[in-house]
Amino acid sequence: MTYVGDTISKVQGLAGTDRLVVISDHTVKKLHGDKFPDADVILIGQGEDIKTLDTVEEVYRYLIELEADKGTFLIGIGGGLVCDVTGFVATTFKRGLPFGLMPTTLLAQVDAAIGGKNGVNLLGYKNMVGTVTQPRFVLSDPTFLTTLPNKEISNGMAETIKTAALGDAKLFKMLAKIIDVNDTKTMTEVIKRCAKFKTSVVAKDDMDAGLRMQLNFGHTIGHGLELTKGLGHGEAVAIGMVMESKLMGVDAKVVTQLEDTLASYNLPTTIKFDKRKLMASMTNDKKRMDDIMTLPKLEAIGKVKLIEMSMRQMEAGLRDLS
Amino acid sequence: MTYVGDTISKVQGLAGTDRLVVISDHTVKKLHGDKFPDADVILIGQGEDIKTLDTVEEVYRYLIELEADKGTFLIGIGGGLVCDVTGFVATTFKRGLPFGLMPTTLLAQVDAAIGGKNGVNLLGYKNMVGTVTQPRFVLSDPTFLTTLPNKEISNGMAETIKTAALGDAKLFKMLAKIIDVNDTKTMTEVIKRCAKFKTSVVAKDDMDAGLRMQLNFGHTIGHGLELTKGLGHGEAVAIGMVMESKLMGVDAKVVTQLEDTLASYNLPTTIKFDKRKLMASMTNDKKRMDDIMTLPKLEAIGKVKLIEMSMRQMEAGLRDLS
Repeated sequence: MTYVGDTISKVQGLAGTDRLVVISDHTVKKLHGDKFPDADVILIGQGEDIKTLDTVEEVYRYLIELEADKGTFLIGIGGGLVCDVTGFVATTFKRGLPFGLMPTTLLAQVDAAIGGKNGVNLLGYKNMVGTVTQPRFVLSDPTFLTTLPNKEISNGMAETIKTAALGDAKLFKMLAKIIDVNDTKTMTEVIKRCAKFKTSVVAKDDMDAGLRMQLNFGHTIGHGLELTKGLGHGEAVAIGMVMESKLMGVDAKVVTQLEDTLASYNLPTTIKFDKRKLMASMTNDKKRMDDIMTLPKLEAIGKVKLIEMSMRQMEAGLRDLS
Repeated sequence: MTYVGDTISKVQGLAGTDRLVVISDHTVKKLHGDKFPDADVILIGQGEDIKTLDTVEEVYRYLIELEADKGTFLIGIGGGLVCDVTGFVATTFKRGLPFGLMPTTLLAQVDAAIGGKNGVNLLGYKNMVGTVTQPRFVLSDPTFLTTLPNKEISNGMAETIKTAALGDAKLFKMLAKIIDVNDTKTMTEVIKRCAKFKTSVVAKDDMDAGLRMQLNFGHTIGHGLELTKGLGHGEAVAIGMVMESKLMGVDAKVVTQLEDTLASYNLPTTIKFDKRKLMASMTNDKKRMDDIMTLPKLEAIGKVKLIEMSMRQMEAGLRDLS
């Protein structure tokens, strides 16, 4: 269940117990600690480098010290990393504790905290270890967003625009008028719409096949750009959506709408790239050129279908783009 | 689904793919490697000491090397430890691979491999990290049992007698005539009956509350004896069942039946113990003397009910026994 708005006071009631343990990080605690429920707090580090099994084990150790058991409710308050670690720890500590998430970044509120996926990295591979476990609740308070740095807002906006393009034409229209993240009323509506869309996709397809693949829009090329060009996630996905759309022959008018909206949130829509390097980074999982990948293709704003493409076709398409 | 008998040739068909990876240990591979399906094999160490997150991480690394993905089916072939590690790894690697178990010890065939619980130890606490995830199949071949050392047979027989006492009076009667583990036909029946009972309890209660507590029969005191007297699991559970039954005032005739059956499989039914040490080892999780625990009490052979008992009552009962 996702709740959007100023509902922090409801956490204890939603958890159904007063044996809470909060998992968060130093920055979030410093900025929003006054809003935390009354509970023990475990703080983890920040940055992709600490998204590891070592961090998970560290949290287990704290939970043992706190004598947490199946009657203890875990609450993750933070960005995607905190939400991921909380979900994985809750799923695996003593064979499963109940948990809820309070995402504090736009990216986590519109995307990462929804859908139950959790995970940590291993040997540099992203989310190599994790599960799909639904939290008891996701509580997204838009007032958390007022303290976000611009880069974090861009990251979230790229996913918001992705969601609108895939399945919510009305949201896409809303985004045409630049939305300020400090406008809590509008942001409440935006987050609600994104959460609703992702929840509906996930509900139909809990185990990451088929339908859920549409959520990868912009991410196939985007991940490659993140790795080879050192772009932030939001920037990479923004360019990825445009490139993938052009590659698949999406209607030029639709591509322009997408580009204009991304640009109005200061997101890039094009970049110079080295085709060879980009292909190499994308073939990480795909070993052979005739391996097939499934990509979402926009038929219109708010309407998508899945198509199949071989690595060979992808390479040919990139040649035409560059 | 549990299959009992000589069904090893069916593994590939049950898995539904030929992309198999076997997880096992050196002893099992040496004894039964010729029966393994055609697949890559990952061997883990042996003994409770290696039931850790380090071992799990080692298996993850091998799986990465083998380029395992969601299309890969994991098969654990071994005792409880191999089954536990396989279940946990399969649940968490790349957010979940399908898996099946081929338990090779009597204990694993009648108990540990059934029910979906997996886990590893942390900081000396047993099964502190794990999940409840059902395997696609459990395949118990009684011919594996012919190579087991006596101690391992005792461990399994204690749980078999426990199962019969809790819910299968006919099995209890079968056990009165000493069963040889080399008698594959009879063992097939014994394993089937045990698997059926545990599966039915677990099906009614997947998340380890209520009903499932009856499976702890003999284990509350048994775990204490394991820790304080250095007994094997089977010996400890055997004595634990008798002590718990006496403590709860189970009918003397029923206790005698239990004792006679245990004794006929060379299992101990009594031991000198230090009440203070035993209580201390049992209060590991229970911090206060008025903490309540739920214990299964035999009303007759094959019939059980759950009763509640405080640590204080337990202590008084132990005083009367010693």
